[in-house]
Amino acid sequence: MIKLDYRFAVKEIIRKNGLGKTEMDAVLKKARTVLKELAKQRAAGGLGFANALSDREMLRKTAELARHFEGRIENVVALGIGGSALGARTLAKALLPEPLAQNPALEKRPRLLVCDNIDPDWLKDIFKIAFSGPSLFLVISKSGATAETGSQLLFLINKLKQVYGEGWKDRLVAVTDPEKGILRKFVNQHHLKSLPVPAQVGGRYSVLTPVGLLPAGLLGIDLEQLMRGAIEMDEMSFKLSKDFGPAELLAAIYFQFAGKGRKILVMMPYSNKLSDFSEWFAQLWAESLGKKYSLAGRPVRAGSTPVRALGATDQHSQMQLYLEGPEDKLVTFLKLDKFSEPLAIPAAPAGLEELSWLTGHSMAELINVELFATSASLAREGRPSLTISIPKLDAYHLGQLFYLFELATVIAGGLWKINPFDQPGVELGKQYTYSLMGRKGFEEKKKELEQFQKKGGQYCWPK
Amino acid sequence: MIKLDYRFAVKEIIRKNGLGKTEMDAVLKKARTVLKELAKQRAAGGLGFANALSDREMLRKTAELARHFEGRIENVVALGIGGSALGARTLAKALLPEPLAQNPALEKRPRLLVCDNIDPDWLKDIFKIAFSGPSLFLVISKSGATAETGSQLLFLINKLKQVYGEGWKDRLVAVTDPEKGILRKFVNQHHLKSLPVPAQVGGRYSVLTPVGLLPAGLLGIDLEQLMRGAIEMDEMSFKLSKDFGPAELLAAIYFQFAGKGRKILVMMPYSNKLSDFSEWFAQLWAESLGKKYSLAGRPVRAGSTPVRALGATDQHSQMQLYLEGPEDKLVTFLKLDKFSEPLAIPAAPAGLEELSWLTGHSMAELINVELFATSASLAREGRPSLTISIPKLDAYHLGQLFYLFELATVIAGGLWKINPFDQPGVELGKQYTYSLMGRKGFEEKKKELEQFQKKGGQYCWPK
Repeated sequence: MIKLDYRFAVKEIIRKNGLGKTEMDAVLKKARTVLKELAKQRAAGGLGFANALSDREMLRKTAELARHFEGRIENVVALGIGGSALGARTLAKALLPEPLAQNPALEKRPRLLVCDNIDPDWLKDIFKIAFSGPSLFLVISKSGATAETGSQLLFLINKLKQVYGEGWKDRLVAVTDPEKGILRKFVNQHHLKSLPVPAQVGGRYSVLTPVGLLPAGLLGIDLEQLMRGAIEMDEMSFKLSKDFGPAELLAAIYFQFAGKGRKILVMMPYSNKLSDFSEWFAQLWAESLGKKYSLAGRPVRAGSTPVRALGATDQHSQMQLYLEGPEDKLVTFLKLDKFSEPLAIPAAPAGLEELSWLTGHSMAELINVELFATSASLAREGRPSLTISIPKLDAYHLGQLFYLFELATVIAGGLWKINPFDQPGVELGKQYTYSLMGRKGFEEKKKELEQFQKKGGQYCWPK
Repeated sequence: MIKLDYRFAVKEIIRKNGLGKTEMDAVLKKARTVLKELAKQRAAGGLGFANALSDREMLRKTAELARHFEGRIENVVALGIGGSALGARTLAKALLPEPLAQNPALEKRPRLLVCDNIDPDWLKDIFKIAFSGPSLFLVISKSGATAETGSQLLFLINKLKQVYGEGWKDRLVAVTDPEKGILRKFVNQHHLKSLPVPAQVGGRYSVLTPVGLLPAGLLGIDLEQLMRGAIEMDEMSFKLSKDFGPAELLAAIYFQFAGKGRKILVMMPYSNKLSDFSEWFAQLWAESLGKKYSLAGRPVRAGSTPVRALGATDQHSQMQLYLEGPEDKLVTFLKLDKFSEPLAIPAAPAGLEELSWLTGHSMAELINVELFATSASLAREGRPSLTISIPKLDAYHLGQLFYLFELATVIAGGLWKINPFDQPGVELGKQYTYSLMGRKGFEEKKKELEQFQKKGGQYCWPK
């Protein structure tokens, strides 16, 4: 299993800024209380993301649909944004070669393209690739009403009809609400292939539902292993044994440091293949915990800010700041114990003898030495960090990681006393967008917007 | 020219959290004092990144070397990390199609691959691509002693010799110090082609020297336009006219908000093509300003933390937190006034009528409406932001942007009273790495490291 090393978070090792035994015990006790409450919800059929793990029928259907397209497509093109995109992106980045290093036609394994933005210049490039070979398009949206995915879908259907005529229907699969929403209506009307997003699971907790599993299955990722990792993490976490589990530890440590002014959570894998895991975590944590009001309606402005970093690269970009700048950070390092190929560093040629200290080592060794050296130099400055070690980058351990962080986030929600499953803040921006785009029913927002549009002239450069 | 709109940073518009007229005047006055001092340094031949703009000889040599390889290579592979990689990455991402949408053999324009990490699994992919067609390898390092670039270089030379024998020398070009360092020694010994990093310009300020210009030139980017944009921004900024320039405004606003607890600087382009610009800025800002001591030696823990975001995507990931979470952020939006192709949103097919409010608009319009809607909803919550508008994404405007942020960063350094050109904090981590890798001369650090290696056992999960 994955390992969590938090020695660089405690007073005994990093001195003044570390957590002392008393406060650690206190916050862990609180985390346990939250977890017990979650265990009750889980037993009663609530806690959708946890209960979805045991839905074998969902897994079977997903695998079956994925098999249907085996060997027939070169690209899996996912239309989706936020939680509808990040799980698939993370899985593909972690477990597949870099897209340019893939040869889908030869290898019989498709490539993943994710349309998670509407920048037209970029989207044009993505569609150019998507239409250069046989592609399957997935539209992933619980409601189908999301402006970005919706506009892409209109664009796509138009294009598919031009290219395939009535055959457009065979190129498109939807992952959406099992019953409600405009996308479900559309699927039913045109008899499109589809899979459900379990009604109880929100976007950012959906990677282990068809939202993440269908793209993963199409890419040849081992779904059974992925689920097994998550299920083992779930079972282990809810044993409520005497020792605290890693989700409780993570939630407690993140929460406690936030209370001490460390409201920047740096997620720093020493692995390019895990760089999208940081993106996935950043959404999960930010959207779940960044809340103005507590469950009791009190203003709290909860949460802390995830920062996506990459080791060793960002040692040459961000580490100076992390070591010497404001004392507002807690770094989580992700370490791969084993890379698939260590890449030995060969002898230095004439003229480069000064580099020969590297010879005989491997890149794998160097990157992990740098991780430890970096965490130790932070510790020496009294700056806290955690290290999560992953034995090997495969579907099984990713399943563990996903579930660990989902559960830790929900526990943190309990510690902050907020609802980790809603996102009330973003509604206003959507309404402003509708209004500015002239959508019927949103005219009244125009007036509210005028105050922001009119008075700006003098606060511009050039004037 | 680019435009800076800071209405959502002032009290008059966003109320309580905005900057009032008095404090704005005061901090701008300080910024002007700093700029006057910089103008003196610049006139005396200091301020390397500014004076390098007028080095026509450097530009001529770079363009000449780039022309030498025109039509002969499919990949430009840059070995470099931090400031040696981020400028080229930013330029390629902004001005070239997505790598998968490129066909270098057909288009006679190479693709850029950047080796800015040592993750062996990822590096293996990159080298696979690099050796699948004719490539030119650039090794970019001021000293050549950087562990990551050094180990890649050993690996590369070994591989090049296997493939090309003595011809390896024609495949490798160095950008390094004109006189000193082990890489310069190596270049001289083997008569390799090379270009200088001007001695006075540090890595993170080097994009407009051969460090960024050579890769850009090889990729067919218009170097004259790039430099012209920067030169115009430089001239305009140092006119010291009655109105404050955009670099002064940026530095003053970022600095003033940091003093009010907004120490998270979100850089959020609404353009995938500008996503690497955020990475470039994040290094520039973090490494320049994250400093423990002031110039006078007083402990200051200066700086603020750059966060890389992407619109519209991160509206579905980070915006909930930015709107409702802790009051510790200042967002900078980057807006493209014009995309190269707006992508019209077509009519909704049967069953998707509810999306027809999008029809008749374009993706370009939608993304910019979302930007304004987002900044307005932040403003309504009293949360500050700036919007920088870029007329068009081309070399000329990128030149302006690069120089604007370089100068703003150096001015901010003056406001914080720190040295924006050094990075003393990262030295210890390097020494720890040397020691752990068994490099001679670093044995003494072993002892210091023992305290971190030994006592951790009880702070691990599982125990």
